Amino acid sequence: MEPQFARLDQTRAFELVTGVTGRPLFGEGAMLNLVRFEPGSTVPAHSHPHEQIGVVLEGMQALVVDGVAHELEPFEAYVLPGGIEHSAYCGPEGALVLDVFTPIREDYHERWHAEEVPDAG
Amino acid sequence: MEPQFARLDQTRAFELVTGVTGRPLFGEGAMLNLVRFEPGSTVPAHSHPHEQIGVVLEGMQALVVDGVAHELEPFEAYVLPGGIEHSAYCGPEGALVLDVFTPIREDYHERWHAEEVPDAG
Repeated sequence: MEPQFARLDQTRAFELVTGVTGRPLFGEGAMLNLVRFEPGSTVPAHSHPHEQIGVVLEGMQALVVDGVAHELEPFEAYVLPGGIEHSAYCGPEGALVLDVFTPIREDYHERWHAEEVPDAG
Repeated sequence: MEPQFARLDQTRAFELVTGVTGRPLFGEGAMLNLVRFEPGSTVPAHSHPHEQIGVVLEGMQALVVDGVAHELEPFEAYVLPGGIEHSAYCGPEGALVLDVFTPIREDYHERWHAEEVPDAG
């Protein structure tokens, strides 16, 4: 793999769930996902085998784990081990969050590439 | 490993090189490192087998790879494959950068724990 440089906030976005979009950057061992929560949006309870590490950049993201809501503001970070059920909601202004997955989410990789607009040339 | 929640900008810092400090959060598959460059600080050319992914949060961080300086501003992100030689410098106001390493940097883990202040109790 060659070095990559990308303007993460201008990378093509894909929908994670209604009102929540991601802008990904795929490495080999890990991936970034810049996640925007529109006000009022939520992520229902789910789990995945991938470790999820992240940090809130703007607004408030709450992560609900084991029945406890952790309301996280800018610079608050988290590690969710693989297989842990979690859900999320955001504050009244929404949230901007940077997530890191190891290994990369192949499901995201496929969905993101599937939404590519073919070259009009 | 249990879920972890941490205020990343208040985590204990350790010195990476003169004028450059890191505030780490260690997962199992990956780690975050919130890196602060003081104005005028530089990171000399080096390499490591770990993949390094990151994004600039404040100021300007330049990454020099293969003789080319990539001057990166907020939301500009990068993937440096393991083994790639790179150096860094920052803009006149310094920089705040979030780095992600896979696998985790055991050298950072040891240095960070070695600087722990023993419980005075």
